Amino acid sequence: MNFKIAKKDFLEALTVASKAVSSTTPLPVLSCIKIIGQNDTLTVLASDSNISIKTVLTNENNILTIEEEGEIVVDAKYLLEIIRKVDSESINIAVVDGTLIEILGGTSKYTVNGVRALDYPNISFEVSTEPFTINTEVFSDAVNKTAFACSDKETRPVLTGVNMVSKDGKLVINATDSYRLAYKTVEVENIHDFNITVPAKYLVEVSRSIGNIDSVNIAIDNQQIFFMFGNTVIKTRLLDDIFPDTSKLLPSNFTQILKVNSREMLNQLDRTSFIRGEGKSVIKLEINEGCINLTSSDSLSSFFGKMSVVSYTGDPLQISCSSKYLQDAIKAIAADVITLSFSGELKPIIITDDEDKSLIQLISPVRTYK
Amino acid sequence: MNFKIAKKDFLEALTVASKAVSSTTPLPVLSCIKIIGQNDTLTVLASDSNISIKTVLTNENNILTIEEEGEIVVDAKYLLEIIRKVDSESINIAVVDGTLIEILGGTSKYTVNGVRALDYPNISFEVSTEPFTINTEVFSDAVNKTAFACSDKETRPVLTGVNMVSKDGKLVINATDSYRLAYKTVEVENIHDFNITVPAKYLVEVSRSIGNIDSVNIAIDNQQIFFMFGNTVIKTRLLDDIFPDTSKLLPSNFTQILKVNSREMLNQLDRTSFIRGEGKSVIKLEINEGCINLTSSDSLSSFFGKMSVVSYTGDPLQISCSSKYLQDAIKAIAADVITLSFSGELKPIIITDDEDKSLIQLISPVRTYK
Repeated sequence: MNFKIAKKDFLEALTVASKAVSSTTPLPVLSCIKIIGQNDTLTVLASDSNISIKTVLTNENNILTIEEEGEIVVDAKYLLEIIRKVDSESINIAVVDGTLIEILGGTSKYTVNGVRALDYPNISFEVSTEPFTINTEVFSDAVNKTAFACSDKETRPVLTGVNMVSKDGKLVINATDSYRLAYKTVEVENIHDFNITVPAKYLVEVSRSIGNIDSVNIAIDNQQIFFMFGNTVIKTRLLDDIFPDTSKLLPSNFTQILKVNSREMLNQLDRTSFIRGEGKSVIKLEINEGCINLTSSDSLSSFFGKMSVVSYTGDPLQISCSSKYLQDAIKAIAADVITLSFSGELKPIIITDDEDKSLIQLISPVRTYK
Repeated sequence: MNFKIAKKDFLEALTVASKAVSSTTPLPVLSCIKIIGQNDTLTVLASDSNISIKTVLTNENNILTIEEEGEIVVDAKYLLEIIRKVDSESINIAVVDGTLIEILGGTSKYTVNGVRALDYPNISFEVSTEPFTINTEVFSDAVNKTAFACSDKETRPVLTGVNMVSKDGKLVINATDSYRLAYKTVEVENIHDFNITVPAKYLVEVSRSIGNIDSVNIAIDNQQIFFMFGNTVIKTRLLDDIFPDTSKLLPSNFTQILKVNSREMLNQLDRTSFIRGEGKSVIKLEINEGCINLTSSDSLSSFFGKMSVVSYTGDPLQISCSSKYLQDAIKAIAADVITLSFSGELKPIIITDDEDKSLIQLISPVRTYK
């Protein structure tokens, strides 16, 4: 194998693929990147067996010349470091002896010992089902505004995933750790019905990797989900267990409706963030028509704040919840004025934007004794 | 105790003093800051028993009003967080009940439980010896260009310090980990003779804390060193053991003299930094009149680079040394063209700037077998 490639494009491809490289794999070969040069295209792929990424470079804009076809498998960390450090716009990579690879660029020459290409597992990116297309901005926005709400504990593995339910042309993307819920509805054309749960960290990785490509094609096949955009395919396994039907958790009748300036509320919550009783920061809200009193305390200190409301309807209310969850929810809603809807002090708090009802954030209240 | 203070100035004073607060002290009271309000001045002090810092605020520019004199001792982390978060230019702090402190600013009210002022150890900042004065820029420059060379291991505790030797009006500031040496000579007026070793981390902390104050007064008294600048005093203990006489290590006769562009050499060294045999990155230099060949390798990969020289006199030379030490030394010299002087492949490498001979960097070579 022997090829010449533009540093910038090669580094980009390696950076995308390296997201699938695991540093803690029991299979050492999976800490490598596989590079295949064939038919004037260079395929760069990596996998940690849960997530696999393939990206293909062609000779568009004269960035690639394959002088001799072949395959190499190289430690991802070393290869990335070398390509990053080479001080030259064009890099020449060649197998010089068995698995010994020579990398030339500018005044530098690196050699690095690869692994036999035969030892790398065979990873298929073939899809036999019909994909649907979703706008990148819509997809990334939905992922960013839901994935944070999933669980970081493995006690109920399915809650570490983001649930995607497609029914009648509507796609619901939702995540919960059973104390909070983020629930986003998206309209997608030509979509078939499904109900899957994708590991949240991989979904976030996908949304980060798409870059400025307009849309992404998504296919579900054989307990795996495939994301196809530009010259890249990312596939990841799905979570097996049944995700709870969260749509049932959303109340429709409220006894109190509060509208507040989101910036002002975030500022107030930020002022209490270091006060953590038993590792958690709990904020108590005392709401009436004119204003909100905020209280937070731990064994050493306490905070009292006061803020105005934009409007409030209903009886005065005392309710406590996680200060961090409330901050996360308000940030996800990302509106100047947000609406908090209540059905009593022990019922979930619903946070929404009146202008865009497609996103609902729900937080369970915390019972406080005093 | 009851006082009103400008947030900005109070936060600055707390930030300076908090550098002396230890989070791992066996004496819980040392995780606190002590604040004394008396005679229209506010003294903020902290100590971890190795380093102690005192800074004094007066009513200059109307920043301080002491309504009731007194002392408080408060957890440093909480106090800093609260003062940082308070949304108001002026803050009111008052003892409301025993050790309970109330902090008012803007719409926020915090309370925090302090510690009895009596429980805080008595820390004296009295100096009975005559101080000498050194320009801040000169002092910080000398610290920054030497302290990095000290040891980070406690096997020979004295090498974790920076040695300061004053003799005949010359101050030598030097540090070594026994594999490298940084040696800086500074002219200071009205200085008496001494030979002390200051823990490097505290010396670096002092040089960071001085800010834009022109000069610092330094006094040595009772196995402690005192740094006095602006309204602040920092004192730290000295290291007891005898520091080796490093001036003897500096060779005066050289067999080879090399001048190179420092940027070019740093770029070459950076290209090898990820290649680490046995945790260390060793670079081999093959120098002759026209150019330098650089080689570095570990079990998986190797690097070959080539760079030009500005000038070279002497026989061709092969020498190896730590790539990181060479980088550190070149960065400390901070000149466009640096001079490397050799006395053979097993003798120390001396790195200097022809324009300013006051700083000498020395690196021991590494013996390589191949």
